[in-house]
Amino acid sequence: MRIRVLGAAAGGGLPQWNCTCTNCSALRNRQPHIQSRTQSQLAFSADGEAWYLVNASPDLREQLNQTPVVHPDPSKGLRNTPVEGVILTSADLDHVLGLLLMREFTPVRIYATETVRSILQANSFFQMLDRLPGQSRWTTIEPGISFSEKSGFTCTPIAIPGSFPSYVAEEHRIALDGDSAVVGLLLESAQGKRIAYLPALPSVSSSLKSTLSTCSVILVDGTFWSDDELQRIHSMGHLSISGPEGSLAAFRDCADIRKIYTHINNTNPILNEQSRERQLLEDAGWEVAYDGMEITL
Amino acid sequence: MRIRVLGAAAGGGLPQWNCTCTNCSALRNRQPHIQSRTQSQLAFSADGEAWYLVNASPDLREQLNQTPVVHPDPSKGLRNTPVEGVILTSADLDHVLGLLLMREFTPVRIYATETVRSILQANSFFQMLDRLPGQSRWTTIEPGISFSEKSGFTCTPIAIPGSFPSYVAEEHRIALDGDSAVVGLLLESAQGKRIAYLPALPSVSSSLKSTLSTCSVILVDGTFWSDDELQRIHSMGHLSISGPEGSLAAFRDCADIRKIYTHINNTNPILNEQSRERQLLEDAGWEVAYDGMEITL
Repeated sequence: MRIRVLGAAAGGGLPQWNCTCTNCSALRNRQPHIQSRTQSQLAFSADGEAWYLVNASPDLREQLNQTPVVHPDPSKGLRNTPVEGVILTSADLDHVLGLLLMREFTPVRIYATETVRSILQANSFFQMLDRLPGQSRWTTIEPGISFSEKSGFTCTPIAIPGSFPSYVAEEHRIALDGDSAVVGLLLESAQGKRIAYLPALPSVSSSLKSTLSTCSVILVDGTFWSDDELQRIHSMGHLSISGPEGSLAAFRDCADIRKIYTHINNTNPILNEQSRERQLLEDAGWEVAYDGMEITL
Repeated sequence: MRIRVLGAAAGGGLPQWNCTCTNCSALRNRQPHIQSRTQSQLAFSADGEAWYLVNASPDLREQLNQTPVVHPDPSKGLRNTPVEGVILTSADLDHVLGLLLMREFTPVRIYATETVRSILQANSFFQMLDRLPGQSRWTTIEPGISFSEKSGFTCTPIAIPGSFPSYVAEEHRIALDGDSAVVGLLLESAQGKRIAYLPALPSVSSSLKSTLSTCSVILVDGTFWSDDELQRIHSMGHLSISGPEGSLAAFRDCADIRKIYTHINNTNPILNEQSRERQLLEDAGWEVAYDGMEITL
């Protein structure tokens, strides 16, 4: 199985349009110790032909352009794509706006929990995905229930404590199952190798940790280095990297797993390749995802 | 007044993610006679300090990144922007999705007709622009009614026959004024020089033509070369360039105006710098907009 990180930044990307933090400024000044990153986006393929996207970031148009394996094939007609489906982990704008960029009459299958589907289908913008019969096809997924696709992978959504996106109205929330507003994903190759993708992770329970310990690779929420990095409103739903309750400590004993941080906020010091924080993290056996990073299972 | 084309392509951009047309394929094969283009986006400034966006394309994050004059200023704090406002010409997704990328708590003023504002405010996604009091401020504009800003320009919305975006529900349309679903813009500098921006133009009336004849520069809908270029559903609302009813013919006698095509669909042969169509257009005194094009009035 090939997994490709198309975007490794949190919402806003790196640099962020209105931000003058050390990282954003270093990028605008073309300093060599930091790379720009688009908003978090994953693609994977079990057979190298059918590709699946995990979420659909606002940067998807550029991310697909930069990735030849997902370009359309001129021998297959005027309009086509190797992208067979999109698996959503939440209804956050940073994870779904890209769907609205895929609306030019090419069929797409969308995998989402009933909660995520209900939130999106209540939004009139998503009617743009239904201008032709069969243009968008929804498949309901549920935490703990695996599904397989013929190209040779199994995907198991993982229950993650999470909240509704702020744009969801109070009266709509009442009718929704809050326990499936956010999921992680466990992807398994035909050979039984596993990778976990958890771009939003508020805490690490012991049951989650035992699930992750069956993985060869984990791609984990690296939004913030510390809890007080940004206004509190931002940090909700994201475990910090450092600190006694942070993800570095939580996975300290998982030496056999390849551990990669992704969904990294523009203010996070680990983005600076010469920072003390980056060094600490690498000393603990972690890597930092970047746009174009390829992982083979 | 400085006007900068941040994106010159129609919706979908160039190349388009799922398209194998001659232009998209030529770009993927890195042929030298064609340039990539992001989705249509304009920025302008009367004083070189306060910048205004015309529309907010889905590619806005990358377009702002590529344009140093609209970067935030480190001497003005952690979060700031020289972008003072966004003037909308319609509620089409290709013209508004970028607003959702500007939501990181920086105040923005949005100029829109009552119709466009009503369509957008009915959509829950736009609540993300109201997470802080005063974060988004709406100013209502009307065709034929000029407004001025202190940095030194006057803007007059121009009535354009247009339709509602397809995502607007039938029951909502009844309550809306269809005559202000789409507008063009006439921008005038303090010195009285004028530029018109008409990214969607279904026809050229004699009154519109006399308005445009007062301009130094016109940036005009160049979506399609011919009416049968693409599925009919796409071409609605866009006058073609060629043909007896096309824009080349309509402006044949306007030799004194600088004439530029923008909002160009990926299938349009004028994008190929070596095409017969490009030559015809240049022979008629027209230019083709590109990302980064700067116009000074």
